[in-house]
Amino acid sequence: MPNTFGKLFTVTTWGESHGPAVGAVVDGCPPRLPLEVAEIQAELDRRRPGQSDIVTPRKEEDRVEILSGVFEGRTTGTPISLLVRNADHRSGAYDEMRDKFRPSHADFAYQAKYGIRDHRGGGRSSARETVGRVAAGAIAKKILQHGLGGGTGGVEIRAFLTQVHDIVTPAEALVEFPTLAQVEATPVRCPHPETAARMIERIKAVRSEGDSVGGVIECRIRGVPAGLGEPVFDRLEADLAKAMLSLPATKAFELGSGFAGARLRGSEHNDLFETRDGRVRTQTNRSGGTQGGISNGEEIVFRVAFKPTATILQLQKTVDVHGAETELMGRGRHDPCVVPRAVPIVEAMAALVLVDHWLRHAAQNRTCAF
Amino acid sequence: MPNTFGKLFTVTTWGESHGPAVGAVVDGCPPRLPLEVAEIQAELDRRRPGQSDIVTPRKEEDRVEILSGVFEGRTTGTPISLLVRNADHRSGAYDEMRDKFRPSHADFAYQAKYGIRDHRGGGRSSARETVGRVAAGAIAKKILQHGLGGGTGGVEIRAFLTQVHDIVTPAEALVEFPTLAQVEATPVRCPHPETAARMIERIKAVRSEGDSVGGVIECRIRGVPAGLGEPVFDRLEADLAKAMLSLPATKAFELGSGFAGARLRGSEHNDLFETRDGRVRTQTNRSGGTQGGISNGEEIVFRVAFKPTATILQLQKTVDVHGAETELMGRGRHDPCVVPRAVPIVEAMAALVLVDHWLRHAAQNRTCAF
Amino acid sequence: MPNTFGKLFTVTTWGESHGPAVGAVVDGCPPRLPLEVAEIQAELDRRRPGQSDIVTPRKEEDRVEILSGVFEGRTTGTPISLLVRNADHRSGAYDEMRDKFRPSHADFAYQAKYGIRDHRGGGRSSARETVGRVAAGAIAKKILQHGLGGGTGGVEIRAFLTQVHDIVTPAEALVEFPTLAQVEATPVRCPHPETAARMIERIKAVRSEGDSVGGVIECRIRGVPAGLGEPVFDRLEADLAKAMLSLPATKAFELGSGFAGARLRGSEHNDLFETRDGRVRTQTNRSGGTQGGISNGEEIVFRVAFKPTATILQLQKTVDVHGAETELMGRGRHDPCVVPRAVPIVEAMAALVLVDHWLRHAAQNRTCAF
Amino acid sequence: MPNTFGKLFTVTTWGESHGPAVGAVVDGCPPRLPLEVAEIQAELDRRRPGQSDIVTPRKEEDRVEILSGVFEGRTTGTPISLLVRNADHRSGAYDEMRDKFRPSHADFAYQAKYGIRDHRGGGRSSARETVGRVAAGAIAKKILQHGLGGGTGGVEIRAFLTQVHDIVTPAEALVEFPTLAQVEATPVRCPHPETAARMIERIKAVRSEGDSVGGVIECRIRGVPAGLGEPVFDRLEADLAKAMLSLPATKAFELGSGFAGARLRGSEHNDLFETRDGRVRTQTNRSGGTQGGISNGEEIVFRVAFKPTATILQLQKTVDVHGAETELMGRGRHDPCVVPRAVPIVEAMAALVLVDHWLRHAAQNRTCAF
Repeated sequence: MPNTFGKLFTVTTWGESHGPAVGAVVDGCPPRLPLEVAEIQAELDRRRPGQSDIVTPRKEEDRVEILSGVFEGRTTGTPISLLVRNADHRSGAYDEMRDKFRPSHADFAYQAKYGIRDHRGGGRSSARETVGRVAAGAIAKKILQHGLGGGTGGVEIRAFLTQVHDIVTPAEALVEFPTLAQVEATPVRCPHPETAARMIERIKAVRSEGDSVGGVIECRIRGVPAGLGEPVFDRLEADLAKAMLSLPATKAFELGSGFAGARLRGSEHNDLFETRDGRVRTQTNRSGGTQGGISNGEEIVFRVAFKPTATILQLQKTVDVHGAETELMGRGRHDPCVVPRAVPIVEAMAALVLVDHWLRHAAQNRTCAF
Repeated sequence: MPNTFGKLFTVTTWGESHGPAVGAVVDGCPPRLPLEVAEIQAELDRRRPGQSDIVTPRKEEDRVEILSGVFEGRTTGTPISLLVRNADHRSGAYDEMRDKFRPSHADFAYQAKYGIRDHRGGGRSSARETVGRVAAGAIAKKILQHGLGGGTGGVEIRAFLTQVHDIVTPAEALVEFPTLAQVEATPVRCPHPETAARMIERIKAVRSEGDSVGGVIECRIRGVPAGLGEPVFDRLEADLAKAMLSLPATKAFELGSGFAGARLRGSEHNDLFETRDGRVRTQTNRSGGTQGGISNGEEIVFRVAFKPTATILQLQKTVDVHGAETELMGRGRHDPCVVPRAVPIVEAMAALVLVDHWLRHAAQNRTCAF
Repeated sequence: MPNTFGKLFTVTTWGESHGPAVGAVVDGCPPRLPLEVAEIQAELDRRRPGQSDIVTPRKEEDRVEILSGVFEGRTTGTPISLLVRNADHRSGAYDEMRDKFRPSHADFAYQAKYGIRDHRGGGRSSARETVGRVAAGAIAKKILQHGLGGGTGGVEIRAFLTQVHDIVTPAEALVEFPTLAQVEATPVRCPHPETAARMIERIKAVRSEGDSVGGVIECRIRGVPAGLGEPVFDRLEADLAKAMLSLPATKAFELGSGFAGARLRGSEHNDLFETRDGRVRTQTNRSGGTQGGISNGEEIVFRVAFKPTATILQLQKTVDVHGAETELMGRGRHDPCVVPRAVPIVEAMAALVLVDHWLRHAAQNRTCAF
Repeated sequence: MPNTFGKLFTVTTWGESHGPAVGAVVDGCPPRLPLEVAEIQAELDRRRPGQSDIVTPRKEEDRVEILSGVFEGRTTGTPISLLVRNADHRSGAYDEMRDKFRPSHADFAYQAKYGIRDHRGGGRSSARETVGRVAAGAIAKKILQHGLGGGTGGVEIRAFLTQVHDIVTPAEALVEFPTLAQVEATPVRCPHPETAARMIERIKAVRSEGDSVGGVIECRIRGVPAGLGEPVFDRLEADLAKAMLSLPATKAFELGSGFAGARLRGSEHNDLFETRDGRVRTQTNRSGGTQGGISNGEEIVFRVAFKPTATILQLQKTVDVHGAETELMGRGRHDPCVVPRAVPIVEAMAALVLVDHWLRHAAQNRTCAF
């Protein structure tokens, strides 16, 4: 089931960029969770294009409808079907893509795999597929607000930009867990105002040249009790890595010390245990919140790299479906930097991973009698 | 099934470091594949400790036995059970760990999760678990030798070290696809002899101080036809990322341009298509061999970061199972840098991912009639 | 994923009886299959209530919409989302069920499991859920028309009634594989006209008393090549049994000789092999088309028993959600025998099982090179 | 993973009749469960051949070894690997089966599926595979002893023979839940002594003619709380049906009223609710312990039909691997009726289904906060 994520709390997404609709089915949601359509809509609104002058102006209302699984404001334990109709698109703008492969897009790979593809707006490979992920993630976030036990209160997930092109947020600006207000204060979703300003300027400059840039998102999660994640293949970081690399345009994932950790000695990298506030804690957090693949109660910290958007408003060499060399000019609506809009998507995927692992942990540890 | 990897070609590993044995069950292997126990043993020998003076001197024979699924030298399509007895260990050396949590090890997280743990040598969290992965990977590699169709011949997977601590192989030394002989020429498995010499020197220096270092492995794969990998969650790179982050001590994964790709513009990053040797090819390979999560026929290139070994021969602060602060002195056999021994493990996991996706692709595309 | 059936060709159904809609997502459908919405609609029309005067008069148009996965009349290999809006229902008719458990319905068990339930029309436990199964099954049937290889041509699935209450079709009337026309000739879908007439008469008599009756469906499948089904847990008959027992109101399943086979000696029961028309065949078919859990190329024959509809127009004792004893009078639309409408549902489930196993077989046997 | 059963409490079996060993890996077992190897051995001893003069005299010691997952007498939450070495077999006795297909055995179907098979003793299709199921089931039974909550105490599973050939236990003899002692009192495992005596006589008579007979096993389960089982595909009875039809030689499954239920009217079949001993109960139990696929707290009752053993000591027509017609004479050790030995296997599979569903239920209902 390549279109399903999770083992116990599962989301199945469906839909193409220019088909009638996109959506998701969430199976395994615990019963009796209070859930309003507005809570899902709020997350979709964060993902929606056209929120500011630095992202694609494509106008999508993206009104979500709950078709099942919720009764009188509470989940029933049965599948929750979520539907978002696609707006009427100018599919004609994509006629050229029927025969030509856009460079660094999925067009060629899909054609090689399936022998057929919906070429309009990338079809299934479009980032529009993430609508279903964000809608499902909103339900997972609702669960996380209630907390996962272990006396740690509600779980908070905060993703934000730390880098656009070569503009990097200074480390000292990221000591504190950013507030949602700080992140949402600017359209780039970087909680450091000075860096945010430079990022916006850079994106505008690049857009004026018909080019694009990539960036890096950091995600921090607090309130996760120790014990989530499973040896050996379904380590918490393994599932987070998969979740992030399953997003369009991502090229890299690192947890805690990440690539920089390879440059340290063990005596520098080890997180020493101590007892703090009555709990076993680590003095430092180079591990990034897991050890042996299992959460240790510290903040979970990871970063995801996004490549620059493949669509640029420049003439590029390519080939057509017959293998003949040709050229292609990007045109129309164009998103010079998708990374800010990816913030709620990263959060959604992190939420899905956490809830899934929480249910798995609950299943195995139910048996208090032993 | 947290101890199972793969959807159609699956491996289930079992076993603790100091239990009677470790092993794996491979289910879904195609029938009629010629397979000798010596082929599996050869891969285990590459993983085995005690191969050189820079790794742990722990002596393990690691003789593998095939208990099922192979008849008269060929697989039968039924599960292949692989068994490796553990040698008689000095478990007494671990008595102190029964009550004390080793810093940056899985001890605390396992205790928090399960309320019980086999403390001897890390139990299930020991890298000894990877014996089963390497054995299963040897079968996957045998399949890959036969090739996956698409006119690309056999598939070759080559992993090697590019970094130990801050010693980095120069980029110009990595232009060519390294040969197995080049990789195996030194105990650090870095194909660039000058860098390898420096790495060995560094590891020895660190060991003499009772400390440890991390490193980076690059893995390249050639011969993969276009079309492997599935939208949207089971992208090829998503499953590779999960596979790598499921290995002990890994902190990061990147495909193709990786984190560096975030610093490029779209016009710099895009891989332009051309027709070369009768096939659609890309002029560059910043994508790292996949587009839209599906292989595009180019070389697959990824890197994995390993943190320094947590066990060091130094006195460290920690807490015991009752939360009382205490100290712990690492002792006994000690591996100052596990990264060289991780090379065959990375290859094994990559092989498992590829064969699994190949079978999945075969299933969906069987229906030539349409 | 309790709402998903299948491993490679999967269907996920969602929706409640009186919610906004019901539907299904089919994942894993091979690409390039020609598919028209009318083909799915035709199967739904066979399932629809109100087709004759012996079934429930509830009027549902059940117009299906394809929301994804089909492009220009062919499947694309991406998920196919199917949607059927529910008509505006008289939910008020169910107010009494909010607090009272209907005897032999799922009401009490759902309440015990979830602590919440959509009581209107049975909610998720309603047979209306099978709309999604039938829609998905129509796609599977389309694949089966193309045949599964092995030189056996297209696969035909024919289900029909052999029993209503104590009226049983004589064995000699079932020697031939019935045609679709024979089955659809009467509203009870029994291919033997005399028995069908008696069944109709019985159903009318029972209805006039506000009572209900059960029955038995036989299903035959021809054109399945040898080799489908997998040892050891996913035997073809095991998956067929699960598929059938997952349908509302089913109480029993038997393959081939079934319960009667327990009364035979081995010398009477064994199906002797012979070579016929150039193929290995069995002289008899007490096995019912599988041996060792794998199809042997003979006709697959199984039977499914349905209990009488739980809803009857009579006053029955029961308890309410507080455990207090009370009475409940069935009223409104009432289906005295659901078995005729279950015929297309049994066929749909059988089709899903076969296509799923065909893809699984294809995956494992792709590797012709060995 | 066709050799794996269960979703959260999973068992993977492996091994061939005449290979080096058979075994199982149990993943998902809750931690801290007290478990001794003797408890597993006891169940294997019930399954072992050579227990009496009416079953196969094949002598197998079947000593089980626990290779992982248990530490100091308790489970650790990691996979439990179970190994049983095969005795040294007279494989030469099977030389004729290398080329000839035994009637009503899996030989032909395996050959058609895989193009290769281990012909010795049926290879993977041998009932010897059930050793792994029984060993795993012993662990599940240990969990069930502790009870599944809901105030119902420990769960008891009792399977027994109700029929051999045409000898049927009278209904009035089965009113009470049989004790284990009653079942084990005779080698046929029928709790009614008079019927048991007739069954034994019949089996001996049939054996003297070199023939075989089938039979029926009934299984009753008490102590299961309401709420296990999941709509819509993973109904409790659907998973029980799959479990039973996955056993060698089974042809039919029925729950509660079963096929006989189809002959009743709704007014006769419905189980009316009442409040008894402070719990919601049903007055009758034609449903067989589930409603809407979910346990309702009543006794779970099902029956399984076994065909007569295919191996008989008579000359039978068949074909060889080249399709040529030939004859085959059964010889050697011969089990005229396997049904008595299937009793612990049916119990094991039932135990696996219950524990798996219990863990699934626990996962979804953990969230008491809502």
